[in-house]
Amino acid sequence: MQSHCVRSVLCTLKRPPRRETRALQPPSRHRGTSSGDDPHGVGRFMQLCVDRHYVSPGHTNTELFQRGVSCVYGPLGVELRRNLLEQWWRSVTRSSAQVFGINTLCRSRDTATGGRGQLGIVESGCLKHLIEKHELSKEQLIQELEKLIQRSTSLRTDFLQGALEQFVPSLDLVNRKLPFGLAEFGPCFRPSDAEVTQTSLAWFCSPRTSSQWLDHWAQQRLKWWRKFALSPSDFSSIDVPAEELEEATSRGVRIVYSFPWGREPLETLWSRGHTELLQTHKGVHSKLQCRDGRKSVPHVVSVTGNMDRGVMAFLCNSLQQLKKEDGMQKLLRRKVLKLHPVLAPVKVALDIGRGANMELRQVRSTSERIISCCGLTRVSVSMRCRYDEMGVLFAVVVSENTLESGLLQVRSRDTTIRETKHISEIKNFLSRYISAADNL
Amino acid sequence: MQSHCVRSVLCTLKRPPRRETRALQPPSRHRGTSSGDDPHGVGRFMQLCVDRHYVSPGHTNTELFQRGVSCVYGPLGVELRRNLLEQWWRSVTRSSAQVFGINTLCRSRDTATGGRGQLGIVESGCLKHLIEKHELSKEQLIQELEKLIQRSTSLRTDFLQGALEQFVPSLDLVNRKLPFGLAEFGPCFRPSDAEVTQTSLAWFCSPRTSSQWLDHWAQQRLKWWRKFALSPSDFSSIDVPAEELEEATSRGVRIVYSFPWGREPLETLWSRGHTELLQTHKGVHSKLQCRDGRKSVPHVVSVTGNMDRGVMAFLCNSLQQLKKEDGMQKLLRRKVLKLHPVLAPVKVALDIGRGANMELRQVRSTSERIISCCGLTRVSVSMRCRYDEMGVLFAVVVSENTLESGLLQVRSRDTTIRETKHISEIKNFLSRYISAADNL
Repeated sequence: MQSHCVRSVLCTLKRPPRRETRALQPPSRHRGTSSGDDPHGVGRFMQLCVDRHYVSPGHTNTELFQRGVSCVYGPLGVELRRNLLEQWWRSVTRSSAQVFGINTLCRSRDTATGGRGQLGIVESGCLKHLIEKHELSKEQLIQELEKLIQRSTSLRTDFLQGALEQFVPSLDLVNRKLPFGLAEFGPCFRPSDAEVTQTSLAWFCSPRTSSQWLDHWAQQRLKWWRKFALSPSDFSSIDVPAEELEEATSRGVRIVYSFPWGREPLETLWSRGHTELLQTHKGVHSKLQCRDGRKSVPHVVSVTGNMDRGVMAFLCNSLQQLKKEDGMQKLLRRKVLKLHPVLAPVKVALDIGRGANMELRQVRSTSERIISCCGLTRVSVSMRCRYDEMGVLFAVVVSENTLESGLLQVRSRDTTIRETKHISEIKNFLSRYISAADNL
Repeated sequence: MQSHCVRSVLCTLKRPPRRETRALQPPSRHRGTSSGDDPHGVGRFMQLCVDRHYVSPGHTNTELFQRGVSCVYGPLGVELRRNLLEQWWRSVTRSSAQVFGINTLCRSRDTATGGRGQLGIVESGCLKHLIEKHELSKEQLIQELEKLIQRSTSLRTDFLQGALEQFVPSLDLVNRKLPFGLAEFGPCFRPSDAEVTQTSLAWFCSPRTSSQWLDHWAQQRLKWWRKFALSPSDFSSIDVPAEELEEATSRGVRIVYSFPWGREPLETLWSRGHTELLQTHKGVHSKLQCRDGRKSVPHVVSVTGNMDRGVMAFLCNSLQQLKKEDGMQKLLRRKVLKLHPVLAPVKVALDIGRGANMELRQVRSTSERIISCCGLTRVSVSMRCRYDEMGVLFAVVVSENTLESGLLQVRSRDTTIRETKHISEIKNFLSRYISAADNL
């Protein structure tokens, strides 16, 4: 079966990729110049995301993407979001702060909140069943419907409620000492049919420090977003104006991204006091008191991010359009998706030269093994003309020459410089490059 | 803020952990011997999972866990499931086979399937709104309910439908060459209120090879489960009997785990033919044909896993009860959760000796930094009497001695041997240990 796979990859080399022509001539509705019918270049940006397999095609789907809610991502978008979530998880659970991961169910029968943070649903099968009972009078039908509503389950709209519920069992892990946090990420649901990939940190601290902690986390989060940015100043934080404060919150900070069409929030931090925590635990102070010197009920700072919009922000932020003239005075436009090395979904692509023979295939599969050991994803060779637009960090070329010398050509996305390296160096070179970028 | 955190960790040392007493004297309903009221030791096993923060407390919750559906996990359970899913993702997307990650939405408005793989839902808010319209006659009410059902959205019950839909856009990535796969994981929903963390691989191959591929993947998957097992023979594969074949499937294989109370399926593989793929794309052969020499519509092999039951299987599989006599002829029972190093949620715990002074704190925070660089999670010191039951791989003890010599004591969960190591060696030692276990 093994050789079967390798063969399938090699064969793709013989024909030109099918969609390149289309990609070079984008559909006319996206051809507008920056001052024309696509004023912010949004159409062209969306088309690039689709063509380079970040977002799955279809108008409805790209609309979801642009709204900053979950859409169907393409394979590269899936990896980008995974990388982003992984980085978030690390930054939160492996910081010097005590943060534990928790999980709540997407759908539950809990009614502790009286509906806050939840979206009641009824299975339409049950409803159909009721309608078919023709013998029911209107009053009986309404009664049955009411019963159905009472038995309805809920989809979570955020993670806060889950964190408030998990506060008590977690006290044991920290021996009732503040501060500590509970973190979670995953899909959350909104009325109508939207869902959002949310991240959530609920931070429990003593009442007198909650405002300081809000500032601390706002600063940490902004630093995190900027760490992965090509142009960090597009990310900024703003205080939530007093008139927009939510119930039970005393202060708020938003991390926003300046999209070409305007600013949109990526993450929101609230100082929430202890009202909701008390409510969740039915006002039983004794269960909630912590050993912070004063036996007080902790205050909650909530940090909620939208990682679907985060994916869009980083794609937007890292797209560079470079113009240069070639020898013939022809203006070349080169688009490069300069995603941060740790976020880039494809770290390295492996190309094999023409005239592939049996030995060459073996070198290819050896190189592939080396690279995949390194924890790096490869990509189908049919895409090699578009590596820069896909954000592929390095392209490695295996040629007939490699057979004798063991040398490979390594091209960098960011410098476009080609270096010759020995096959045995590649793994170390790549992992050093990525971890250096991570530690910057 | 930094010093604040460190202080909070240190203070926990001064008082004994609160729940140890309880853990040593499990509640009477779980005290039964293996031949008594807890014949398979299920109750004691569940209690351990709760006490050691794998599963959140509460009878309803442990019942979900035992049924093999998603429950609310504790912080250690969250990490264990994350590690398991990460290993699955790697094994599937970084194998020599061409597999791309995709994602579908939990909730959608698609009706391409006529309801297969989906669970129709109606928001109970809309229903309430209808009931409150007192002026409606019974007929009008029924009409309105029917409209509501027509506009209902669906929760996914599996990932197959999404993969079948993403087949066409993915053809571009592989230049229409078979075989290739589409992978996804996340929550899927069942009627009533259960949800399951599913993994899914949809493998598209030429019709003449589909049976071979089913065998290939069944073998790969069994190997994967056994890789992380303490007792691999508890995992096995069985052919699905002819009478249990589902519609549209021609052959099936199940990977099962032998729990103390019986065998339960962890993963199911089906050879599905092309009926559903054709149905999804409205029978348009031309869109689906691939270049496998015969321009045929591919067959689908589906591989669907339940990672919630997977978590339970590995917890069950790795729990060892050791008996030994101490010097006083007293029988000691020692429970060790020998989770595979890559799955263990806490790789290393850091203990600080008594008489903590300022310098000792500094050593602690240095060691902590070293360890967290290494990508390892730490745990609250209040739990240190229970490291073995939590499956913590190594416990590192920082003592006053460390200040002068730089030496730490490292205790292994599996050998119980204590070794003295220099602080500078720790990071390498741990990462070598874990990656060695990974490559076995």
